[in-house]
Amino acid sequence: MSIIDSQESTLYQQLAETFATAIHQGTLAPGSRLPSIRRVAGSHQVSVNTVLNAWRILEDRGLIEARPQSGYFVRGRLPSLTESKPHRAQVIVPGSEKLDLIDTVFAAQTHPDYINISLACPQHADFYPTEKISRIAASLLRRQPELIGRYALPPGSERLRREVARRAMDLGMSLTREDITITHGCMEALQLALRTVTQPGDCVGLETPTYFYLFPLLASLGLKTVEIPTDPQRGLALDALELLLSEQRLQAIIAMPNAQNPLGCSMTLADKKRLAKLVNDYQVPLIEDGLYSELQFTWPLSPTVKAFDREGWVIYCSSFTKTLAPDFRIGWMASGRFRANVARLKAVSSMAESALLSETLAQFLESGGYDHHLRTLRRCYAAQMDEARGLIARHFPQGTRATQPQGGFVFWLELPGGVDGVELFHRLLQERICVTPGELYTLSGRCKHALRLSCCYPFDERYTYALKRAGALACEMSGIGPGNEG
Amino acid sequence: MSIIDSQESTLYQQLAETFATAIHQGTLAPGSRLPSIRRVAGSHQVSVNTVLNAWRILEDRGLIEARPQSGYFVRGRLPSLTESKPHRAQVIVPGSEKLDLIDTVFAAQTHPDYINISLACPQHADFYPTEKISRIAASLLRRQPELIGRYALPPGSERLRREVARRAMDLGMSLTREDITITHGCMEALQLALRTVTQPGDCVGLETPTYFYLFPLLASLGLKTVEIPTDPQRGLALDALELLLSEQRLQAIIAMPNAQNPLGCSMTLADKKRLAKLVNDYQVPLIEDGLYSELQFTWPLSPTVKAFDREGWVIYCSSFTKTLAPDFRIGWMASGRFRANVARLKAVSSMAESALLSETLAQFLESGGYDHHLRTLRRCYAAQMDEARGLIARHFPQGTRATQPQGGFVFWLELPGGVDGVELFHRLLQERICVTPGELYTLSGRCKHALRLSCCYPFDERYTYALKRAGALACEMSGIGPGNEG
Repeated sequence: MSIIDSQESTLYQQLAETFATAIHQGTLAPGSRLPSIRRVAGSHQVSVNTVLNAWRILEDRGLIEARPQSGYFVRGRLPSLTESKPHRAQVIVPGSEKLDLIDTVFAAQTHPDYINISLACPQHADFYPTEKISRIAASLLRRQPELIGRYALPPGSERLRREVARRAMDLGMSLTREDITITHGCMEALQLALRTVTQPGDCVGLETPTYFYLFPLLASLGLKTVEIPTDPQRGLALDALELLLSEQRLQAIIAMPNAQNPLGCSMTLADKKRLAKLVNDYQVPLIEDGLYSELQFTWPLSPTVKAFDREGWVIYCSSFTKTLAPDFRIGWMASGRFRANVARLKAVSSMAESALLSETLAQFLESGGYDHHLRTLRRCYAAQMDEARGLIARHFPQGTRATQPQGGFVFWLELPGGVDGVELFHRLLQERICVTPGELYTLSGRCKHALRLSCCYPFDERYTYALKRAGALACEMSGIGPGNEG
Repeated sequence: MSIIDSQESTLYQQLAETFATAIHQGTLAPGSRLPSIRRVAGSHQVSVNTVLNAWRILEDRGLIEARPQSGYFVRGRLPSLTESKPHRAQVIVPGSEKLDLIDTVFAAQTHPDYINISLACPQHADFYPTEKISRIAASLLRRQPELIGRYALPPGSERLRREVARRAMDLGMSLTREDITITHGCMEALQLALRTVTQPGDCVGLETPTYFYLFPLLASLGLKTVEIPTDPQRGLALDALELLLSEQRLQAIIAMPNAQNPLGCSMTLADKKRLAKLVNDYQVPLIEDGLYSELQFTWPLSPTVKAFDREGWVIYCSSFTKTLAPDFRIGWMASGRFRANVARLKAVSSMAESALLSETLAQFLESGGYDHHLRTLRRCYAAQMDEARGLIARHFPQGTRATQPQGGFVFWLELPGGVDGVELFHRLLQERICVTPGELYTLSGRCKHALRLSCCYPFDERYTYALKRAGALACEMSGIGPGNEG
């Protein structure tokens, strides 16, 4: 059953979620037996069949297993990546070797014949309300063909900016449409933000590990990278950042406080407030990448750092690329005190965005379909994340650790036994399977044994086959057998 | 009659074009009498009615006039701007005053309540095959809604690149689809080209006058502007450029060899060849802005400088923004020896273009409708250019001179009597009429008495009223009466 197909959460799905939460929170420990089916039916006032359906979902997600004659048990889980390895920040410029590796991975990621289990782009129409969006676009084309003869000049479609401002409230941000500039995806927003607040030669702080395209972006602007440590469960290590700021001028910091790429973790509320205060005190622009903020697994959504920005030092960048319509490449930014310069730079950088695509998105957002869509998407990714982690626990070498993401669809693995992630990448590529080596996400060589994986694909045979093969190869390379749970 | 409405060139239109050419080439001099209608009907083997219809077109375009009892005469024409004022190149950085003026003009140009007679963007659906493009897009959405869930990663849609390469042959360029990178409009192509070949602090040569957005673009990249003189009829002054190159390192040159903005002029074939050889000899990247190349008024089209580029020093940038679908913001570049770096930079600058919009354009280009559309557009702009020049000859101060564009839809005026272009701009703005002062197109203060105008609008009462008012105000400010032709 494809979870994305189900339009409404039914009784057994609700029951499955209740037990999934109990398992995640440790209320039901790995190896422990679940209460009997009759008992659950009685205590939850549902039929036996409903419980059986719920158990099937939990089995699919790799959370429980049936043992003959004994009932259902909570499965052994992947150990979580929790320990932070504090290290001093360093100024680094990427070598051509790193840039070549990025090119190689990029080429593999976009190769149509490869099975990709890592790309952070669900290139699959099932994950988007494509039909509804298509209908809106087609109707606009029919009623207003003149849109094709115009541009939506900066700051961009007024109607779309109003909708963006309205939705930003869910993430704790009080914005008006005047605060917002529409951009060509989040990548352009990050590019414009950096060009607005830095000069060549400046130092910019990045999380370690971080979105790997930031390295060539910084290099192309003549900027130096300063790597800041992270905690795999809480994100940016603020003590390390504060120490760094007290010693050295950073011209900007780029961080992803919610559902970080590649870790998947989110900062705590207290940390977000502290980060907002830090950048305000030190007057350092924070470029907040909010790309996955709306895909947090919990509701209400945890706010952004921008929500606590009192004096406009936070430039919030986001996009509808990961949630609604990758192809439209419509992003946006709320640039605080840098707003006027950002809008000017947008004009000379790529001028305008498509009015047709902007109005289409605006109309979809007005229609109210977005909330329902996001709920479905969050549920789907949370479930697929569990399932992927279950497969990894069974098929990757014992001692493999993984992050426990709080949103989005990517997560991070650390492999035991000295397995080299780049070598694993190259060997899997020979079998037309594409993963992303951890090395790509840092300049300081700290992630040699890591991989980023993604569970934004339909969980078909191709995907599970590729994941199992990656695990088998890692076992072979490490000389360690696959994990046995429970 | 709106010329754009007529789908096919009919007999009387062909006759009108024949006589228009004779007038432009001076075969029929200003003030001379046209042969009698009966005689033309006889010599061209057409009916008297056909000749009358052709004469009506020429009257509408301001090329001929009827004098009672005497017949038809070729009208007095605007004096052409021909003399070149040679001057030495200077290195200049724009002051904030210039950037503020650009902002002011930009705001006025995009104000919906102003009558704009200057913006180089025909924001009017009549000038585009919007219905056909809409149908293609709607059909793609219906048949392939999954397009919304994808991106067209760099270098961009293969189908579109193939069509672009095929069409480039009309401009003398031998390209394959591998040579081409799809961009977010021509503006992004220029931005990527500059970022690929320069470093902050470098000097870049620009034509004087030139497209004014290049000044803030160069400033945003920390580049210094070196202004190179132009001849209002032949474009870039190559003797001046050669002298400059022999004395000073330019890291790049940006030029518009065909239908230059704002002059409207094109370089001669010999000059294009010489420019290609010059940049090759000096190994200076030439960023060729080909935005209006397909809107040249003559057929076959005069080739680009890129057509004579032997060693890949020319980066050709263009877009479908001025000819087909402004809203789509689909541009392209052929970057010669810089291709790999350009594609890399595109990825970290704004990642991808919309597959939906790229495929829509590709399908339109494949359908063969583009050639027909371009023919109609060229004829329309050539006719409107004549008509606008006719109105200016009658309503602007005597001694006003104008360029005689060879393509596109913008042209350049020089006003007599010390009229200050910026003052005229501000005074017209009070009447909600927007022109662009010449001052915007140079950093060296050489264009104080100039204006750029555009004739890419439907020639309705609003447009002619605004043009007449601009003339009347210029007369008032200069103390010189309006021109009397003939």
